[in-house]
Amino acid sequence: MQGALEQVLLRLTGQPCRIRYAGRTDAGVHAEGQVIAADVVWRHSLADLERAWNVLLPPDIAVRQLAEVADPGFHPRFSARSRVYRYTVWTAPWRSPLHRRYTHHEPRPLDVERMNQAAAVLIGSHDFASFGRPTQGESTVREVMRAGWRREGALLVFEIEANAFLRRMVRTVVATLLEAGAGWRSVENVSQVLAARDRSQAAGPAPACGLCLVEVKYQAGLPSGSPAQDDR
Amino acid sequence: MQGALEQVLLRLTGQPCRIRYAGRTDAGVHAEGQVIAADVVWRHSLADLERAWNVLLPPDIAVRQLAEVADPGFHPRFSARSRVYRYTVWTAPWRSPLHRRYTHHEPRPLDVERMNQAAAVLIGSHDFASFGRPTQGESTVREVMRAGWRREGALLVFEIEANAFLRRMVRTVVATLLEAGAGWRSVENVSQVLAARDRSQAAGPAPACGLCLVEVKYQAGLPSGSPAQDDR
Repeated sequence: MQGALEQVLLRLTGQPCRIRYAGRTDAGVHAEGQVIAADVVWRHSLADLERAWNVLLPPDIAVRQLAEVADPGFHPRFSARSRVYRYTVWTAPWRSPLHRRYTHHEPRPLDVERMNQAAAVLIGSHDFASFGRPTQGESTVREVMRAGWRREGALLVFEIEANAFLRRMVRTVVATLLEAGAGWRSVENVSQVLAARDRSQAAGPAPACGLCLVEVKYQAGLPSGSPAQDDR
Repeated sequence: MQGALEQVLLRLTGQPCRIRYAGRTDAGVHAEGQVIAADVVWRHSLADLERAWNVLLPPDIAVRQLAEVADPGFHPRFSARSRVYRYTVWTAPWRSPLHRRYTHHEPRPLDVERMNQAAAVLIGSHDFASFGRPTQGESTVREVMRAGWRREGALLVFEIEANAFLRRMVRTVVATLLEAGAGWRSVENVSQVLAARDRSQAAGPAPACGLCLVEVKYQAGLPSGSPAQDDR
């Protein structure tokens, strides 16, 4: 994605330019609320730049909103206050060709109440070393503000917000909660896994395709208002 | 799709077999409720056949439910009482990489109330010659039981049920109603188009990707119960 965005900017402005990102997304992970920043020399309006960029970008990337940043110290990643991720599970007994690109298929019966009890264990400031490795620095302490599952027909949707995430943390949390929902783990076991600070205690990460970066939040909103919601 | 299904059946049973369909779907049109019938020689259980079929089918086709048919005269198309199609429009100003495969992007502001008034004009038994050509036979009279738009966040969802449809009828109806919603046609104009029985009066068909065959209904339900709903 980075390559495509920078290439198009180069083509539009004639100048090479490095883009700064709010969050990395592993291969196969989707994003509908990624925030990026770049120093761009552009003589026309922001609306023109947005149109031109969207015309030249490949169909799997779109620019939703552009804004000028007043604060030269703004960095989409380091200025962020929190991130929201969503993980979507397709729970019908049959495969879904229409959902397969954006969901993980889990046909086993799942106890959603137990999954929510186990998710509640994670809320607060904890050392999440059992659930992932830090991208930078040494600390594995993160603050989870909310985490919960909801049913939408045959879909089970998990949403989690934290100040920041460890690498593969959301997918590892999801896989562990799914094991709780399938009856392989108790809520107490999830508590123990969290306390153990041992990566080998949690489940392996759930498939990337179900994961989506939904939103990145800033202290005072985005430079000129938050982008409108997709309401997926 | 027909080719893949018949090939897998041949591989499973060792016998060539012709599949009968409830409805054709043009290239690019999706189906989550297609009904098919075939004469299959199989010594094991229906559940075994369903599993084996799903394992061998490509990821973009799935079998949701199999049932044995008691009535030898059952034909998924000719025994059908009605069909339900859904057309989904993505209405945000930006392109949606996550929705692009299953929606048509329409960033113009749309008057949904007017689109529903225009849709109501089509309900009942009418000659729909302005909206499509018959697949078989000469009559272009069809009975539309319901037709209406609803908003789901940034999506506009059209659902229409009729005893049967002419070729490209749903996509032509959708494109015409979108023109009404964008202010290019009045509700009266849609009435006149219907009365004209002239294919050149309606809009060209909307793109295939937004269309999905949702359900085919039978007099007494499907042979052994209707398939569960996807609740997309």
